[in-house]
Amino acid sequence: MPDSESMISRHILPNYRIAVVGSGAVGCYYGGKLAQFGRDVHFLMRSDLDHVRKRGLRILSKQGDFHLQKVHAYGSTKEIGPVDLVLIAIKATANAALDTLIPPLLKADGSTMLLTLQNGLGNEEYLAERFGAEKVLGGLCFVCLNRVEPGVIRHIGHGKIEMGEFSGLPLPRTWEVQGEFKRCGVVCSVAGDLGLAHWRKLVWNVPFNGLSIAGGGIDVGQILADEDLLYLTRALMREIIGIAKTLGYEIPSSFADRNIENTKSMGAYLPSSLIDYLEGREVEVEPIWGEPLRRGFNAGAEVGRLEMLYRLIRRKVNAREHEE
Amino acid sequence: MPDSESMISRHILPNYRIAVVGSGAVGCYYGGKLAQFGRDVHFLMRSDLDHVRKRGLRILSKQGDFHLQKVHAYGSTKEIGPVDLVLIAIKATANAALDTLIPPLLKADGSTMLLTLQNGLGNEEYLAERFGAEKVLGGLCFVCLNRVEPGVIRHIGHGKIEMGEFSGLPLPRTWEVQGEFKRCGVVCSVAGDLGLAHWRKLVWNVPFNGLSIAGGGIDVGQILADEDLLYLTRALMREIIGIAKTLGYEIPSSFADRNIENTKSMGAYLPSSLIDYLEGREVEVEPIWGEPLRRGFNAGAEVGRLEMLYRLIRRKVNAREHEE
Repeated sequence: MPDSESMISRHILPNYRIAVVGSGAVGCYYGGKLAQFGRDVHFLMRSDLDHVRKRGLRILSKQGDFHLQKVHAYGSTKEIGPVDLVLIAIKATANAALDTLIPPLLKADGSTMLLTLQNGLGNEEYLAERFGAEKVLGGLCFVCLNRVEPGVIRHIGHGKIEMGEFSGLPLPRTWEVQGEFKRCGVVCSVAGDLGLAHWRKLVWNVPFNGLSIAGGGIDVGQILADEDLLYLTRALMREIIGIAKTLGYEIPSSFADRNIENTKSMGAYLPSSLIDYLEGREVEVEPIWGEPLRRGFNAGAEVGRLEMLYRLIRRKVNAREHEE
Repeated sequence: MPDSESMISRHILPNYRIAVVGSGAVGCYYGGKLAQFGRDVHFLMRSDLDHVRKRGLRILSKQGDFHLQKVHAYGSTKEIGPVDLVLIAIKATANAALDTLIPPLLKADGSTMLLTLQNGLGNEEYLAERFGAEKVLGGLCFVCLNRVEPGVIRHIGHGKIEMGEFSGLPLPRTWEVQGEFKRCGVVCSVAGDLGLAHWRKLVWNVPFNGLSIAGGGIDVGQILADEDLLYLTRALMREIIGIAKTLGYEIPSSFADRNIENTKSMGAYLPSSLIDYLEGREVEVEPIWGEPLRRGFNAGAEVGRLEMLYRLIRRKVNAREHEE
């Protein structure tokens, strides 16, 4: 007779088949954490496919390096087949690819969960329109990662996921997924209101990612050290809080100051959008600036600062692409 | 017995003693026009003083070059002494110098007129606070000028002055000064509302001077050719019109589109603030962006776009000065 603990464990622990779509730094890190703890994870890969098949996946982290020698890596989602949970971590600028990538991963009973770990606004809606809102969960990643070479991800700091149901309040499955992340060493919390969580994250992302590009390629320390950019950081944060309020998401105004205080300890940190910009990769202009602007504008909120930032960044990014 | 015409002329024509303070392109051009037609003009000069004393003043213009061999040029306003009319054309960033430059030019009877031809907002107020509002007139110059070398000004185009009384409606003296400009070949109109005239000019100056610097050193043609900058131009114009409205100055919203249409014919024109910026001279950040922003903010108008532009330009200009 099995002892009671193993019975409980067998009963409580889900036995998810998991696919990771988009095996950049975010996909490899969170998928890698789940695989490290024995979960059944299948990675869709492109450029790193052969390398990872031969040499595995390596995560370098202050919390402990680890190496997964045997990784289930595939060149298509058809080879992966239906799964219980999809972690979506492609660039939001490439969302159109999901139209064909996702269907082979869906179970016939409709129970597959689509958890997007992408930046900004609009990704959950994109999935909901195509595959049904009831499948969609959103996860906000507070993590500093860098892909240093094929199959090697450096985890620089943080790592928390804040996740929730696109359709509303947490369900039993929400807590199950959270539990799986926690049991695999990922700090994870369930958000009662995913929309509010997004807008809270935008309070930081809009000014710091934005001014780092608009300011000509500067880190968060340089933004905070400049009187005018610090002023604009605060003004943009307040404008985002105002837009959120108009949309029904209450964020206390003290949140702006707290965010600025917390950023002081980050030193010369380069926001991810700036790294994308500097390295010639696509910048997620629409999810971080464009979509928040459109929602604020349509709701009649004051959006002038965000509009300036969005247009100046869009122009810079387009100008860079024309130069290539 | 003199004939009636010369009697009328002697009676109607004022016989102003005129000082020009700030003998850059604007001061030399308008002072030069008055001197060309025989008016009693006295120029305060600094760097060009010796040159102009020896070689005179030369204006190059499609409307006809002219050369003033004998120019009354001085190194101090004490040497000039009291006058009837002062044309003020120093950079607004140097207004503090007026505290000592103006007093020697004032007549004991208080009748000296101070006509500022400077850019942006705040110059009339500066003079009014120190020397009395009743002395102050404002003139807006719509002119393209360049100082090409000591004592030589190139008149590129336009030239109109729109002038008015700081204290309100036109007085007899306002029409007299206008008449003098007109008789000396300067297109000049009297504004019923000087404040309104300023805000109408800002509708062009704020976006075009601003985006040419914030956009990294581009001409008005490049601004109009870029989808995002054209959008921001229109949005900034509408914001300025909105601020003006809040302050009681009605500008029709069609004025924005008309301004953009008219700018299309200007081709690769470089706004004056950009030239100042590129040539390392002081940029009139406060009169063109800072003061309009503060007035709009204090009146409770929506100022987000102007605030972004002001702060981004201020930072750029300060960063340039630190590099030197």
